[in-house]
Amino acid sequence: MNISIIAIGDELLIGQVIDTNSGDIARRINPLGWKVNDVQVVADDADEIKRAIDRAFETSDIVITTGGLGPTKDDITKTTLCQYFGGEMVENPDVLENVKQVIADRGLVLNDLTARQAIVPSSCNVIQNIVGTAPIMWWERNGKVLVSMPGVPFETREMLDAAVLPMLIEKFPTNTAIEHRTLMVVGYSESLLAMKIADWEESLPPFLHLAYLPKPGLVRLRIDGQHQDKALLISEINHYHNHLVKMLGDNVLFDDDVPVEEILLLELKAHGLTLSTAESCTGGNIAHLLTSVPGSSAVFNGGVVAYSNDVKRNILGVSAQTLEECGAVSREVVEQMVIGACQAMKSDCAIATSGIAGPSGGSDKKPVGTVCIAVKTPGGIISMSHHFPGNRQRVIVRASMTALILAIEQIRALPKHQISSTVEE
Amino acid sequence: MNISIIAIGDELLIGQVIDTNSGDIARRINPLGWKVNDVQVVADDADEIKRAIDRAFETSDIVITTGGLGPTKDDITKTTLCQYFGGEMVENPDVLENVKQVIADRGLVLNDLTARQAIVPSSCNVIQNIVGTAPIMWWERNGKVLVSMPGVPFETREMLDAAVLPMLIEKFPTNTAIEHRTLMVVGYSESLLAMKIADWEESLPPFLHLAYLPKPGLVRLRIDGQHQDKALLISEINHYHNHLVKMLGDNVLFDDDVPVEEILLLELKAHGLTLSTAESCTGGNIAHLLTSVPGSSAVFNGGVVAYSNDVKRNILGVSAQTLEECGAVSREVVEQMVIGACQAMKSDCAIATSGIAGPSGGSDKKPVGTVCIAVKTPGGIISMSHHFPGNRQRVIVRASMTALILAIEQIRALPKHQISSTVEE
Repeated sequence: MNISIIAIGDELLIGQVIDTNSGDIARRINPLGWKVNDVQVVADDADEIKRAIDRAFETSDIVITTGGLGPTKDDITKTTLCQYFGGEMVENPDVLENVKQVIADRGLVLNDLTARQAIVPSSCNVIQNIVGTAPIMWWERNGKVLVSMPGVPFETREMLDAAVLPMLIEKFPTNTAIEHRTLMVVGYSESLLAMKIADWEESLPPFLHLAYLPKPGLVRLRIDGQHQDKALLISEINHYHNHLVKMLGDNVLFDDDVPVEEILLLELKAHGLTLSTAESCTGGNIAHLLTSVPGSSAVFNGGVVAYSNDVKRNILGVSAQTLEECGAVSREVVEQMVIGACQAMKSDCAIATSGIAGPSGGSDKKPVGTVCIAVKTPGGIISMSHHFPGNRQRVIVRASMTALILAIEQIRALPKHQISSTVEE
Repeated sequence: MNISIIAIGDELLIGQVIDTNSGDIARRINPLGWKVNDVQVVADDADEIKRAIDRAFETSDIVITTGGLGPTKDDITKTTLCQYFGGEMVENPDVLENVKQVIADRGLVLNDLTARQAIVPSSCNVIQNIVGTAPIMWWERNGKVLVSMPGVPFETREMLDAAVLPMLIEKFPTNTAIEHRTLMVVGYSESLLAMKIADWEESLPPFLHLAYLPKPGLVRLRIDGQHQDKALLISEINHYHNHLVKMLGDNVLFDDDVPVEEILLLELKAHGLTLSTAESCTGGNIAHLLTSVPGSSAVFNGGVVAYSNDVKRNILGVSAQTLEECGAVSREVVEQMVIGACQAMKSDCAIATSGIAGPSGGSDKKPVGTVCIAVKTPGGIISMSHHFPGNRQRVIVRASMTALILAIEQIRALPKHQISSTVEE
């Protein structure tokens, strides 16, 4: 089954809002064995929208539009679709009932403008939006389907799962199997990794395809397979996947596509350990990543964002002398920070960062991008000094990822051998 | 000038990577008075890429492609463009020199695979990529231009600013003026705001257009104008903009489109105040947002992510009795957290959050989404209890934004009157 996505909104074309809906839809379509042919992003303009629909129907069986369904004047998707598919704009009492309910659930009173959400084209089937006021609209023409969904990302995600995908699966039963395997690989650049596995890649059968997906601090390798014979596909993809895992050994950080922070939390749980963070240059980003994972409170005790030297001294117990002699950005200081974090927050393990994220604050000896990272586990303390290229945001992200990966590696090493000395990178 | 953007990559169509490049390009194109007509996202597939280019040239003078320029086998943009525009793939010595330089700057040694980045179509003009190994390629046909740029976001951003945009401006001098004004408005839902300003919106001349851009905790109103007569356009857009500012009064959080965390930092600087954070349910997100802004260290002393009650007690001095009697998610606890944060981190102001982000941990009395927020300034302490809808991520984002906005309002109120009592929402 071929799918086209059309994201509608002027704000997307001036870059004020990033279109995350299309990715959310694609991520859900993919495991069904269906293919997203293309995404078109177009303006809140009737002609543009109609042209995009024409194009989409040329190649796809299913067209999903997002956006342009608000009650304000700039949103015209609903009336444009009414012109495209015919019918009239009429008030739908079921939608009005639903809008009233959604508004009441938010503790608000329905106003006249929001009530206009209940006016829908007579030609569509309405799917009630249980998490928002914009009705979801479904049209069929020549055996093809167009579904119009809201632009608000969580509404689109929730309603895809709750209603739209189940209805599409019922309408278009499928018989091509699709499988994916993703490996997260550390310690290689994209090109060195490609050379390492060149022979293996060359040997892939035509129905298996490899993609390189670099992320800060690692490369994800994804094997995609598509075949009518599901058993054969699974057997072959497993064979090539296992071979790759063996070939890359300890460089495989994880045998699936999972956020790095989630892998660290899994390792901590598996070892029965708790964690705290002491962040200077990463400014709370590591704590934020960890606490974004549901259930993180079971192993994450807390963190300190030690931006000023006062905080490093008073809360984390870093010695004033070390700060003076070695500077805040030093392996000595981050080593004291992990010790202080474990004591102050009563944790078994700690991660600390101190660096110069820029754009100012660099020197010849410690240029912008210099970041010291330490990890403490029951096995000991390790610290490293890195230099990361790029702007402030990139340095923060790269330092956070490197620290998380180092912590994973240290905790994984625990049962095998205990680390007691510091290691220079 | 009309622009089409084509983002190329299988990973975009299965949702593994979100296309942020198109937004980055659009944000830079917009102030030039040019219009991004549409964005197409297509697979690493020669036919799809060619079809997308044909479509783009139908309506646009400038086509910018991103992605598919890596040295690995799955990247085929370069050879496809060579087929499309003609010529042969040849090694370009200048590109090879540049690739060697970029690799050396990263402290790496050039390998055979990366060296293949220097093989480019003979039909294009190459723009040296000073921050990456993928060459940027420029073709002209019938007075129109296609530029092929990398998929790595920072490379595309840097090279747009450094080379591609200046070259496009030289090639296509423009004479239509474009102006934007954006207001950040708090205290209204999108629909209530639309009703409040309906008459004003109705009175806009045809060359001015209003867009509603909701964000967590606020609505951005953007006035877009386009006219041949720049002086007239500026005079008219200023007139309508000033009227809107007057009408909305204190509900205007800021008279531009700026991250909320940046507004808070500006207010702190203007008042000569320092800040610290004490976060439970927002898990470091507020500290992360603040420290993402360059120069934040001048006013942000640090933060504590007080996930466990131990950390709330030991570092922030929250009383065990209050935790026991009122629960960690209570106005009493967040009020003690801001006091403790100011003491522990020697700051003038503090923000604290404690809540139930979910998916578990809720109760009848305090359901998932309950968040208590406190702000301390030299004027006093204010605390509120909120209930935010949605999943964990939404609750974290919404709580962070609400806390930042509350802090801005409290600091702004300082010179006028001092707040000493707590206020229920």
